[in-house]
Amino acid sequence: MSVRTMAQQARLASGIDAERGAILHANRADMTAASGAGLALAKLRRLELTDASLTQLIKGLERVIALPDPVGAVTREQVMASGIRVRRVRSPLGVIAMIYEARPGVTVDAFALCFKAGNACILKGGKEASASNRVLARIAHRALAEHGAPASALTLIESADRDELRELLTLDQFIDLVIPRGGKELIRFVKEHSKIPTVQHFEGVCHIFVDESADLASAEHVCATAKTSAPATCNAAECILVHENIAGVFVPQLVGRYQCDGVEVRGDARVCELAPAAKGASADDWGREFLDLIVAMRVVSGLDDAIEHVRRYSSNHTEAILTRDEGNAEAFTARVASSCTLVNASTRFNDGFQLGLGAEIGISTSRVHAYGAMGLEELTTQRYIVTGQGQTR
Amino acid sequence: MSVRTMAQQARLASGIDAERGAILHANRADMTAASGAGLALAKLRRLELTDASLTQLIKGLERVIALPDPVGAVTREQVMASGIRVRRVRSPLGVIAMIYEARPGVTVDAFALCFKAGNACILKGGKEASASNRVLARIAHRALAEHGAPASALTLIESADRDELRELLTLDQFIDLVIPRGGKELIRFVKEHSKIPTVQHFEGVCHIFVDESADLASAEHVCATAKTSAPATCNAAECILVHENIAGVFVPQLVGRYQCDGVEVRGDARVCELAPAAKGASADDWGREFLDLIVAMRVVSGLDDAIEHVRRYSSNHTEAILTRDEGNAEAFTARVASSCTLVNASTRFNDGFQLGLGAEIGISTSRVHAYGAMGLEELTTQRYIVTGQGQTR
Repeated sequence: MSVRTMAQQARLASGIDAERGAILHANRADMTAASGAGLALAKLRRLELTDASLTQLIKGLERVIALPDPVGAVTREQVMASGIRVRRVRSPLGVIAMIYEARPGVTVDAFALCFKAGNACILKGGKEASASNRVLARIAHRALAEHGAPASALTLIESADRDELRELLTLDQFIDLVIPRGGKELIRFVKEHSKIPTVQHFEGVCHIFVDESADLASAEHVCATAKTSAPATCNAAECILVHENIAGVFVPQLVGRYQCDGVEVRGDARVCELAPAAKGASADDWGREFLDLIVAMRVVSGLDDAIEHVRRYSSNHTEAILTRDEGNAEAFTARVASSCTLVNASTRFNDGFQLGLGAEIGISTSRVHAYGAMGLEELTTQRYIVTGQGQTR
Repeated sequence: MSVRTMAQQARLASGIDAERGAILHANRADMTAASGAGLALAKLRRLELTDASLTQLIKGLERVIALPDPVGAVTREQVMASGIRVRRVRSPLGVIAMIYEARPGVTVDAFALCFKAGNACILKGGKEASASNRVLARIAHRALAEHGAPASALTLIESADRDELRELLTLDQFIDLVIPRGGKELIRFVKEHSKIPTVQHFEGVCHIFVDESADLASAEHVCATAKTSAPATCNAAECILVHENIAGVFVPQLVGRYQCDGVEVRGDARVCELAPAAKGASADDWGREFLDLIVAMRVVSGLDDAIEHVRRYSSNHTEAILTRDEGNAEAFTARVASSCTLVNASTRFNDGFQLGLGAEIGISTSRVHAYGAMGLEELTTQRYIVTGQGQTR
């Protein structure tokens, strides 16, 4: 099994490499149609494939190939007093349906990870990416066929209206897990209609709390890059909370830095007072995933106030504290139960590769089954295999 | 936290011990009403508490107290090339709602496990157990109050009609996990209406396949006791599949043993021919959880036929093979993906205590989140805590 999945994935990687022209051609058609239809800039960025991003995709596949096969791994082994030998082993989940936005790279990543974990997958990407996805699925199907795997290991749903999607979500006899990955509306629709277990990959409304004891030079650098290095990703910082005792110094400093970096700051009254370059935030700027060069900023009275803000507005994705106070660091990571909490590091580290999973299919924001970065192991289940010599009870 | 939960659980155990009279009195009222209302015998057995079963409950609580605290346990720790230290830690799921049948022992077990894993729980047991559950919840609330925990750690829903239950299942902002545990109708209702993630504890339609190479004396003993030692439990065997090459000897032998033990056998045509004491099975006896001294029996042509039968009729709970052929044992445990597959051991070992979990809240028959026996760890999630020195990317 493992050897064959490796061969198929290697074939998928070389197929992508060989068909760069066809993939980029299809992607350009998708981009033209989407930009003509007025798709938002952040979404266009996610839709676009380039020669460089294809190279990244291929590298990602190579990393997946190199990962150990999760299926069959023994996670616990014990001989009980009764004499039975108990093993807990990783096993495929079965059929995984993933519903996501117009991001053709996800099509390749999701198939590679689901397949390596022994699952069949049904992929429904955003319709704006349909030409790109069709070419990528064709390459994947050829890789499957060349190594004797059934084509049903990957089913691409090219387009589906809401009624068809609703019907898909009732097929709990055939589908074991649904992974919706995208915005509020998609998640809500899937939650509303799914009779199949779901693990949600919801938006990342990531907060950074700059405590009064923070190293301010480092804090400026972390806050700035957490927004600018990849503003359209789910682990980008969307809101900065500044301790009032350092606000007088740090707010003007950070707003200045953001101005240099082309980031629009939407601040509360105190922020606007300290740094007139900031715009006034509206109520719906709190808890908002801008996915763009925009950041919200608020002055808080301390740790409790920061935690209260996070609890109210976060999407359980990623939250960071910048501090030199170990007690505050511990309190923050204990009381903020987001999928990843960081002390003195950028929110952008909440990523399967950065956390050592080797690959990821996304970041789950629901606590059941898998919370946070989902790698190969999170695409499996565990079951028991018991061997005895005729034991009864 | 750990010390306090231990104190509360110890107080719950001593409270149950001190109030045996009140609990048994309430339970007798429940039993009288339920038997007057014509509740089936298997369900009456699950409803009944005795002095001995209370002693078992108290022993169960003591075992839970002795288990290590799962919350805060570090399951992975790694320093990455970037210099960040990544820890994955166990964390409570949040609020767990459990909907189950009239089994007052489950009320105590479920609260103890949910609470020890740091969760609040909402318990809705079958209405036939409402007097028993009310007394047990009162004792639990006293234990919570005496040690300063909020009463909201346990909410008992004494009765709810289907409309109220349906409303409960939409409260996904407040409830993190729903565990329905019971029969087809309950599971179907919850699946139909829940917007909250669910882990199902469905019925156990457990099969034993007696291969041609099985030790027949041992096989007789395993098959007999897997039904008779606790016929109303979910891990009791419900269907015996016998290899045709040994059917001539083994079917009459096993049917004779079942007759001695008071077990009714419902066989296919071949079984009835070989052992006239067997009744003819009807189509709905396959895949049926009898929960009583009744067992289905079929002659199969071999391993493939047995596996095909299991795939069609099993509830993914527990399946066993009795064989001396290692290849067949491996094929069976690889191809049958039930939550527990056993080789040469009784299906009754699929139980949290027997498998080494220390305790269990039930046996999940769904693959997502937790599959099979659910102990303390399965009532938690895992999240990442990262510490750095100002790292960015």
